[in-house]
Amino acid sequence: MKPKLGSLCAVAGIGMAVFGLVHAAGEEVPPAPNGIELPNDYKDWRMIGTAHRTDNHSLRVILGNGTAVTAARTGKTDPWPEGTMLGKLVWKDRTHPQWPDATVPGKLNHVEFMIRDSRKFPATGGWGFARWVGMEQKPYGDDASFAQECFGCHQAAKATYHVFTVPAELP
Amino acid sequence: MKPKLGSLCAVAGIGMAVFGLVHAAGEEVPPAPNGIELPNDYKDWRMIGTAHRTDNHSLRVILGNGTAVTAARTGKTDPWPEGTMLGKLVWKDRTHPQWPDATVPGKLNHVEFMIRDSRKFPATGGWGFARWVGMEQKPYGDDASFAQECFGCHQAAKATYHVFTVPAELP
Repeated sequence: MKPKLGSLCAVAGIGMAVFGLVHAAGEEVPPAPNGIELPNDYKDWRMIGTAHRTDNHSLRVILGNGTAVTAARTGKTDPWPEGTMLGKLVWKDRTHPQWPDATVPGKLNHVEFMIRDSRKFPATGGWGFARWVGMEQKPYGDDASFAQECFGCHQAAKATYHVFTVPAELP
Repeated sequence: MKPKLGSLCAVAGIGMAVFGLVHAAGEEVPPAPNGIELPNDYKDWRMIGTAHRTDNHSLRVILGNGTAVTAARTGKTDPWPEGTMLGKLVWKDRTHPQWPDATVPGKLNHVEFMIRDSRKFPATGGWGFARWVGMEQKPYGDDASFAQECFGCHQAAKATYHVFTVPAELP
């Protein structure tokens, strides 16, 4: 019986591993209309910066994948290297419940990404744009043309390769 | 000659490894006056929250060690578990150079920590406080009593176990 039990356990193990992969790959969250998939580990990326926008009352934290963080910490963002992935997590701002002069994150508004791949995204400055809205992570945009809207806004940051994020100073 | 060269390389390798350890352990940065050492890997901790304080014009990102992040993401911060380490990175705020309605980090002001160890820090609510100022990471405080200043201010957050940080909503 032992080998049989062993085989069953192995099959169960593989099954769980496959389920884990499927879940970890974020397949429950639909891709953006331009085909970009939600990076499944973005919440574990390291911190690059933060911002408070008073025009739309939102607080942001900018995280980056390994390539982005290495570039940011060594000052090699001129230009950001191929493979860079920047993730911006955006919350509606609200007053801190115990400190009236502090603004802190309220409801999650959306998460958005810039993915550096010059060959894949020549029409938008070499960046792939994608956004997922709210806690349900609904892909933003009706069709692939939504990225032109992103790129249009990011023209204001043309001098910094269309990236608004300035890496925060770190020791 | 070959074995000799090999030995030299081995010695050099060990030397570099030791240097790496010494550097990685942050021994160049003096401990806080209460003996707390600067956590050597805090810049790689994951994101828990952010805040903008308009009273002293500073932007903050709150990172946490593994214990803290697990607690924050599973809502088990009532109370925060023993071993929690929260790191707050604080920059002077400034206007975004390309987006006047956005405030972004300017010069690093300080990094500060709360370390949960009820037995070690009973006089300050079970939290060890420490702060290092500026890019030179100068320990804050003349003697160990500086922590009473931290704790005094954190009385405003007594209802949340002296922690101001509200973990930001994440999907």
